[in-house]
Amino acid sequence: MPRPPQRLLSPEIITEAAIESVDETGDFTMPGLAGRLKVRPSSLYNHVSGRAEIVEFMRARLMAGIDVTSQSGSWSETVAALASEYRRSYAEHPRLIPLFTAHTVQAGVAFGLYNALAQAFSDGGFEPGETLHAITTVDSFVLGSALDLAAPEVQWSSGPEVNNAMKAALATSGKNPERADAAFEFGMRVLISGLVAQLPTAH
Amino acid sequence: MPRPPQRLLSPEIITEAAIESVDETGDFTMPGLAGRLKVRPSSLYNHVSGRAEIVEFMRARLMAGIDVTSQSGSWSETVAALASEYRRSYAEHPRLIPLFTAHTVQAGVAFGLYNALAQAFSDGGFEPGETLHAITTVDSFVLGSALDLAAPEVQWSSGPEVNNAMKAALATSGKNPERADAAFEFGMRVLISGLVAQLPTAH
Repeated sequence: MPRPPQRLLSPEIITEAAIESVDETGDFTMPGLAGRLKVRPSSLYNHVSGRAEIVEFMRARLMAGIDVTSQSGSWSETVAALASEYRRSYAEHPRLIPLFTAHTVQAGVAFGLYNALAQAFSDGGFEPGETLHAITTVDSFVLGSALDLAAPEVQWSSGPEVNNAMKAALATSGKNPERADAAFEFGMRVLISGLVAQLPTAH
Repeated sequence: MPRPPQRLLSPEIITEAAIESVDETGDFTMPGLAGRLKVRPSSLYNHVSGRAEIVEFMRARLMAGIDVTSQSGSWSETVAALASEYRRSYAEHPRLIPLFTAHTVQAGVAFGLYNALAQAFSDGGFEPGETLHAITTVDSFVLGSALDLAAPEVQWSSGPEVNNAMKAALATSGKNPERADAAFEFGMRVLISGLVAQLPTAH
């Protein structure tokens, strides 16, 4: 009997298996990936240096789906367009988000987005320190919104403990994704007008 | 030989074990909890109805640590104080966040926070539909910021692919938690001034 052919491995194949594992279970391990790919754990290390590098490959894979070039219009339109793209890409794999935020950003391709945001804020007149905080603010809002987009159709169940103000608010709620989309649009308007108000020229 | 004493179980003990499991691995399973607690899976079902109820117990446990009563001052000060409390509580267990957002909010105690936010926005003059979106906007920003607070000391590694605007921004960055705290303060100022700008009286 011929030996079974050696299973083909590549960083891309390992990254896809890791994304699948996180989508299903919330995390991945090297032995778990080896089992999923039906290879020995040691074989993985011929292609990746370990867990941290796989996280960066996963980040690069998601970031590669974000169009950072089609920027036209004002700095604030650019920021809103980037945020919208970024949210869409991350909402497909919400369980990756805590892994990404737990690791230092090293993927070169990830800087495509952050470079574009930094350029937009700098063009808008923000100082470097404000630019860093503005990027973090947009980042936090987008990651939270990506989780919200992946939320169940009914995000809050009403009950006797709900007060009148919250009851009235819930009565206006459509189902996801319409509710999440409308909230994201509202939130981006809030963020942009709040950011504009931080600029010296706004006073 | 006497039989070993029956292991004591309660919803609280099961909830703590589930939080430990998510902190360590990103998720929990009923068989995994049974193994962690050295009981048979069937014993768990004498105390909890299943996975969804455990998620609500975990949410209730974290929400119980949030002080929603000490509200004084304007609606915007109340919102900022609630957001700050909420972020602090969630940052201790960042990997719970995607589990929470993936399940409908049912825990009565969780509505303490949402009721307080709804009351603040209603007091501020927001219509019910805007109140719902404003709550979601604050929620998304806070959850993203809790993940950011749990980020590594160095969130971005600089490299040749970093453009000048991002390089200047990174040069101003302190380490966590100072960087994350400063970004959260900046973001809350942005959100509040952006929310104020949505009110009809602002125009």
